[in-house]
Amino acid sequence: MEIEKESRAPETRQSENSRFRENEGHTITVAGLGLMGGSFAARLKELHYRVNGWNRTETVTEKALQRHVIDSADEQGISNSDIVILCMPAGCIVPFIQQHLSHFKKGAVLTDISGVKGHLCDEVRACLRPDMDFVMAHPMAGREGQGLDQSSPRIFDGCNYILVPDEKARPESVEKVERLIWQLGAAHVVTVTPAEHDRMIAYTSSLPHILAVSLMDSDSFVEESRYFVAGSFRDGTRVADINASLWARLFLENRENILAEIDNFQKSLDSLRRAVEDNNREQLTRLLEKAGERRRMLSHEKNTR
Amino acid sequence: MEIEKESRAPETRQSENSRFRENEGHTITVAGLGLMGGSFAARLKELHYRVNGWNRTETVTEKALQRHVIDSADEQGISNSDIVILCMPAGCIVPFIQQHLSHFKKGAVLTDISGVKGHLCDEVRACLRPDMDFVMAHPMAGREGQGLDQSSPRIFDGCNYILVPDEKARPESVEKVERLIWQLGAAHVVTVTPAEHDRMIAYTSSLPHILAVSLMDSDSFVEESRYFVAGSFRDGTRVADINASLWARLFLENRENILAEIDNFQKSLDSLRRAVEDNNREQLTRLLEKAGERRRMLSHEKNTR
Repeated sequence: MEIEKESRAPETRQSENSRFRENEGHTITVAGLGLMGGSFAARLKELHYRVNGWNRTETVTEKALQRHVIDSADEQGISNSDIVILCMPAGCIVPFIQQHLSHFKKGAVLTDISGVKGHLCDEVRACLRPDMDFVMAHPMAGREGQGLDQSSPRIFDGCNYILVPDEKARPESVEKVERLIWQLGAAHVVTVTPAEHDRMIAYTSSLPHILAVSLMDSDSFVEESRYFVAGSFRDGTRVADINASLWARLFLENRENILAEIDNFQKSLDSLRRAVEDNNREQLTRLLEKAGERRRMLSHEKNTR
Repeated sequence: MEIEKESRAPETRQSENSRFRENEGHTITVAGLGLMGGSFAARLKELHYRVNGWNRTETVTEKALQRHVIDSADEQGISNSDIVILCMPAGCIVPFIQQHLSHFKKGAVLTDISGVKGHLCDEVRACLRPDMDFVMAHPMAGREGQGLDQSSPRIFDGCNYILVPDEKARPESVEKVERLIWQLGAAHVVTVTPAEHDRMIAYTSSLPHILAVSLMDSDSFVEESRYFVAGSFRDGTRVADINASLWARLFLENRENILAEIDNFQKSLDSLRRAVEDNNREQLTRLLEKAGERRRMLSHEKNTR
């Protein structure tokens, strides 16, 4: 696979006050104020942007206003936004755009955070005004739990951020989104096609969630298990506590890739099981060593958590 | 399963200076100065114990002395120790005891940290002096990596600690070891039989390590994967980087239990895979919700990380 990749030292918080003064007066709309949207809003405020918010459930919008996570929540705010970040489930994106179509600023660029890209871009383009643009992206950032209360501006610190522009995305729109991504605090930005994105993400994101869920769901779990767990179990199951309906949808939207990843994992687990069953200490040690080497590659990657 | 369980608020570091002055002048020997032994030594020093160390490889012993992780490394130190903590691979325990048998203090209590108990207790008792005692235990504490350099006194903060005394262990010996465990910083102490220990640990400790290793070893891993990972992958594979030969041995020593746990996990993974394959969103959501509920039970457990 050929990917375009760029890495940078994360923007330090210390230098922000001076560096990001230029953002003052610029409005960004964050649509969808859950865990991710709330985190975007909080981070954008740190970066001195004016943040306009939108949420389907109005009580959430009001909470965000009261807590000053957002500065406003109105059509005027949408009309002032050069960039609109769509932090809602993929299925809600087109209805949202249609509902607000006449209010978007001339030349506004939309970007999303959907975990599966599929044919999203075509669907969105079909309903955009010709002056607008859409640049798909996916921050590899998040945390356990769900909802505005769980949001944090720190989830972007040193993260990987995937840019997934289709061939119709205008270079200046891509550049605009990428500039924002670096400001958020990303350490690496890779640019891939929607198909590549969906394939990679099935392994690096969906599969760890599936294993965490399956480990918790095992018949072996009993109430007393909690007194026998250590860091390995806690870390391995942290993401078992997620927005169930959102993730069920994500898994099904990327069904083929996920089945392929489960099957690849299965081969790997089977090898290990066989080595245990055969009492093959040499083979078992080899499998453990291989995993260790690969894992160290991951953690020695500069600037990445 | 009926287990005896006790929980306490972890000993706070702030209160240590005064509370643990009583330990001054008391010597404890830590035998085996790897990640775990080094962590015990460092924590015991915080608790004002005098720490005597022993390690098969002398360069490690010297490093520990130079860094003041231990105060001494000699037979005199062993002779002064009421408690000896065996932090070596289980197979090295009997030779270590035989080598130093005449030097142990009268009435010395040995305790270990072995990940699998099996018939260890009988083997150890067969070579102990009659005045000595052995109380098996297993701290559910640790971290990735290996060796003295990776050790940290903080790994015990709020941990689970399993006490596995056999029926011959004297109550006053068990009490002595348990008192030390609370001082180390444990939040929960459970008491179980060796067989129960080995069965529980196969699920709560070995299995998460096996999944982490299998996830890293998947054929899907490519060099570029690192630019697509987020917290779920990082956390889920943290313990893939472990002492390969030590863990291969641990897995094989607990072979039957581990095979049973892999098979239970397999059933759980198969259910999830089937729900994805069948496009069964309802069932998938149910499985995710069940995992989330169980995971929240785990994290809401007081005093536990």
